[in-house]
Amino acid sequence: MRVRKRKGAEEHLESHPQFVISQPEAMKGHWRELFGNDNPIHIEVGSGKGAFISGMALKHPDINYIAIDMQVSVLSHALDKVLASQAANVRLLLADGSDLRNYFAAQEVDLLYLNFSDPWPKTKHEKRRLTYKTFLETYRYILPQKGEIHFKTDNRSLFEYSLVSFSQYGMLLNKVWLDLHDSDFSDNVMTEYEEKFSKKGQVIYRVEAQFL
Amino acid sequence: MRVRKRKGAEEHLESHPQFVISQPEAMKGHWRELFGNDNPIHIEVGSGKGAFISGMALKHPDINYIAIDMQVSVLSHALDKVLASQAANVRLLLADGSDLRNYFAAQEVDLLYLNFSDPWPKTKHEKRRLTYKTFLETYRYILPQKGEIHFKTDNRSLFEYSLVSFSQYGMLLNKVWLDLHDSDFSDNVMTEYEEKFSKKGQVIYRVEAQFL
Ligand SMILES: C[S@@+](CC[C@H](N)C(=O)[O-])C[C@H]1O[C@@H](n2cnc3c(N)ncnc32)[C@H](O)[C@@H]1O
Ligand SMILES: C[S@@+](CC[C@H](N)C(=O)[O-])C[C@H]1O[C@@H](n2cnc3c(N)ncnc32)[C@H](O)[C@@H]1O
Repeated sequence: MRVRKRKGAEEHLESHPQFVISQPEAMKGHWRELFGNDNPIHIEVGSGKGAFISGMALKHPDINYIAIDMQVSVLSHALDKVLASQAANVRLLLADGSDLRNYFAAQEVDLLYLNFSDPWPKTKHEKRRLTYKTFLETYRYILPQKGEIHFKTDNRSLFEYSLVSFSQYGMLLNKVWLDLHDSDFSDNVMTEYEEKFSKKGQVIYRVEAQFL
Repeated sequence: MRVRKRKGAEEHLESHPQFVISQPEAMKGHWRELFGNDNPIHIEVGSGKGAFISGMALKHPDINYIAIDMQVSVLSHALDKVLASQAANVRLLLADGSDLRNYFAAQEVDLLYLNFSDPWPKTKHEKRRLTYKTFLETYRYILPQKGEIHFKTDNRSLFEYSLVSFSQYGMLLNKVWLDLHDSDFSDNVMTEYEEKFSKKGQVIYRVEAQFL
């Protein structure tokens, strides 16, 4: 996602230390202390402007949410949404999701969301896809046994690729939706990309995959 | 598939014993003898009127094909196609595919095709779907280690179900197509249902799944 640089984005993030984690490495193993409770921790990698995570946080007050994005401007928009929502159970992390073991201890995260991840359509960029096996390896470390990844996208090729990548990594597919918006799934919270692409008539795919 | 009863269908089948197997149980363990060579054996369960199997047989003369359907009238149409194609490497089997271990010895079949299988949409009919776990158990028996099932359909729910069923059974997904007719797949041979539903604008799904 290309986002226009937002003036003052960095300062905006810095001025809200209660929501924005400035030293993510220091948090490893300490997330439950930070939230001050033992509720499950769900994270979204590549969270964009935060519609999903703030919507989920309001809907599920007994779950702690962490939105991770590596773009300052994007995350500053997510901060606006979190502030507006007044949800207390969400934190924002400015970080590259390519090795989450830097920020989370083994099994510290209960569920991982990927929403409309960058597709990286060229084969030579396969390794950058957030569902590539080296990413799955890092997710497996921070998730519990039988931990789950919930992934949705409008990108057909990325979804085809990801189903195979999960399966070949030894994960189980627990449920698959090939048209989420025309399905029995009632608990959906839309992301910014989901709003945009479903309005254009794109089908939205979703999968829940589980480590063994 | 509901098919109008065809007058004389039974006699038609009986009069072509070189193509139509009348005593399938007797064939168990003897298919290679029947074909008179050691070529791989590929079968289609629920083959319908035979467009796929006769098309494949012409395209791949070094593979032996067996079309299996349990409806007399349907199979008699498949016989017409086989006769017209003059392919020598295909046989027709009038049989219920619900336990193929009756007709094939362990590992006697090299690849199994399912095309546009009846969807049985109601949950209470799940056990009748050709990708239900008890069917997978029988397929596993007649296929070699790492044997594959190639499945295509236009039915979204059946495809979602089948991806999960394969995965939960412990099979690997090797490749998935969420719009076969808009893909890199060049080797496609259309079935009757595929012709019909793709003309109506339906997307065609395909998966190659493998036993461990
Ligand atoms: C296509 S946008 C989708 C945003 C949001 N999930 C949605 O559905 O609207 C992808 C986002 O992932 C972020 N991203 C891509 N790779 C990342 C990585 N390795 N670590 C953290 N964020 C990443 C980008 O900065 C961008 O904001
Ligand atoms: C929807 S039609 C599809 C036919 C063909 N494969 C096509 O794609 O055009 C399903 C076919 O499967 C056959 N069938 C369904 N259940 C079967 C079973 N248990 N054993 C054998 N054939 C079966 C039906 O008789 C019917 O001809």
